[in-house]
Amino acid sequence: MSDWRENIRHVKPYTPGEQPTGESIVKLNTNENPYPPAPEVEEALREAAQESGLLRKYPDPEAGELVRALAAFYGLSPDQVFVGVGSDDVLALSFLTFFHSFKPLLFPDITYSFYEVWARLFHIPFVKIPLDADFRLRKEDYFQENGGIIFPNPNAPTGIEESLADIEEILRRNPGSVVIVDEAYVDFGAKSAVELTRRYDNLLVVQTFSKSRSMAGVRIGFALGQPELIRALNDVKYSFNSYTMSRLAIKAGAAALKNRAYFEQTTGKIAADREKAKDRLRQLGFQCTDSRTNFLFVTHPAWEAAKLYEDLKRENIYVRYFRQPRIDNYLRITIGTGEEMEKLYRFLAAYKG
Amino acid sequence: MSDWRENIRHVKPYTPGEQPTGESIVKLNTNENPYPPAPEVEEALREAAQESGLLRKYPDPEAGELVRALAAFYGLSPDQVFVGVGSDDVLALSFLTFFHSFKPLLFPDITYSFYEVWARLFHIPFVKIPLDADFRLRKEDYFQENGGIIFPNPNAPTGIEESLADIEEILRRNPGSVVIVDEAYVDFGAKSAVELTRRYDNLLVVQTFSKSRSMAGVRIGFALGQPELIRALNDVKYSFNSYTMSRLAIKAGAAALKNRAYFEQTTGKIAADREKAKDRLRQLGFQCTDSRTNFLFVTHPAWEAAKLYEDLKRENIYVRYFRQPRIDNYLRITIGTGEEMEKLYRFLAAYKG
Repeated sequence: MSDWRENIRHVKPYTPGEQPTGESIVKLNTNENPYPPAPEVEEALREAAQESGLLRKYPDPEAGELVRALAAFYGLSPDQVFVGVGSDDVLALSFLTFFHSFKPLLFPDITYSFYEVWARLFHIPFVKIPLDADFRLRKEDYFQENGGIIFPNPNAPTGIEESLADIEEILRRNPGSVVIVDEAYVDFGAKSAVELTRRYDNLLVVQTFSKSRSMAGVRIGFALGQPELIRALNDVKYSFNSYTMSRLAIKAGAAALKNRAYFEQTTGKIAADREKAKDRLRQLGFQCTDSRTNFLFVTHPAWEAAKLYEDLKRENIYVRYFRQPRIDNYLRITIGTGEEMEKLYRFLAAYKG
Repeated sequence: MSDWRENIRHVKPYTPGEQPTGESIVKLNTNENPYPPAPEVEEALREAAQESGLLRKYPDPEAGELVRALAAFYGLSPDQVFVGVGSDDVLALSFLTFFHSFKPLLFPDITYSFYEVWARLFHIPFVKIPLDADFRLRKEDYFQENGGIIFPNPNAPTGIEESLADIEEILRRNPGSVVIVDEAYVDFGAKSAVELTRRYDNLLVVQTFSKSRSMAGVRIGFALGQPELIRALNDVKYSFNSYTMSRLAIKAGAAALKNRAYFEQTTGKIAADREKAKDRLRQLGFQCTDSRTNFLFVTHPAWEAAKLYEDLKRENIYVRYFRQPRIDNYLRITIGTGEEMEKLYRFLAAYKG
């Protein structure tokens, strides 16, 4: 007799970072922002509570209020903006939409580990391109035949930024592929490829409210690109779930975008703290990549990263460790508040390995 | 030279009902609840505003608070509950997970039109099984070879409920397939198949907060079934988007479940109003199916549905019309407030066709 188990899709899902809860925990493992969202978000939620009767109605399927606010923020038109439930939702739908070829998708060997998960989920052929010995992306590697290209800039978990000139050359050499630049961490001092969307109709730039806008808990991501690309993505979205963005997310997201000063101030502070953290960790004997994000990627010549990760965890200090070739002696450490970072430094200063 | 357009997925997306906005509009077209959510939801949002600093953190990827509240409400254990961004998200992920066969998925010819859209999106072969002349589902039609079965109960847009005995026979005859019973409208007086999940490991029951819990704007849907089925669905979910449920949705959804009395009172009122509406429309010459939902499915022997739909719209009364074989002379009318229904009756009483 047949069994329904034979007909289901078997996958090896992405493992998100641990989400421990508790007062005394120093949580430097999922690249959250140490500062609260802009005060306008609290205000928007108070209004939403007052108007809770409205929740009986479906949201605007186009999330127009949020799309228009993003378009205004980035100097684009609304038909150049797509929004989703965090950048993972935007990326998952982008994989489904744009990487529909028998030719392989290309991405770096050391990168956001969800890319491989999506490729397997949707049965997309892929080739992982090794970064060089310094964890840099070599543009020439992306001049080969492919069915799509994706990489983060700055890259994760290395934190390293590639130049817009290199990205532009990759775009120019690949008119037959959609190239996705995943800019989850771009707001902490790196250069965005958004300007290149004006000249390249095959470029999709993806960003998120989870890091630089302190709204990981609200789930908002977005993509910027030419109208034809955005339309194709929306068609697939409307074939998957017409109403992904709740009334609450639309309202809170649009509110956050009103305060550019707060955004610049908090991201600037984190970028400055990151540079200080590099100095402190180097003084403690670590090697750090030149991260342009809200995290550091570090290794210590005398200490085993896997053990340090466990020893930190026992002290309620959570960082991220990837049991993966080439980076299995590295730790990814989110830039937290001053107090959190001091706890980390104190522990490391006394650490014997 | 190759073109990225050749490599993208082309789809014909689902068309959601119109979402007109304005004070004077009588909106009976998307089966929204005329009553606000339970008062606990407003309270939860006030709290969320006060704790808006928490939004900087990712939500619990398992949405544990909401899952546990649902498990308690339905007398199940948390590992029998899956939650998503509206039942469309739950259904889309279920199609991706469970209908992964070369054998065809079976669903009725007249049903929720998104089923065909998902099947096409994921390249799932399917066969539409005609309902009988009275829009009833014939269980025998589902005893043939298949790679999965899905139907709503009550069905949409007909509103007709099938018996649990028939559903049980379909389950018993199909141990090789996952059978999804889409119960978006079950809370308005129909019998849920949830009890059958105890005995059939191939049954997934899908429900939503959008109709009976007045929370279409928050985007919460859920699935109930045996742990093995829920685990397979979660594996695919974690391969698509780890964090689909926002902190706000988790909190608001769990709050709504606290007030069973409000839920029973408002759904009971709507069910009673539906029976009154059937009488009124029959007096006006309409034929109505025996809907057990929060909408009516009606046809008038003397009037053309497409024209009536347009004429109603001109008066700011929105109902739903499907330009589709067999039902292109029917209208689907949501049960609104007493006042909204009176406006509709007044218009129809004076209508000349």
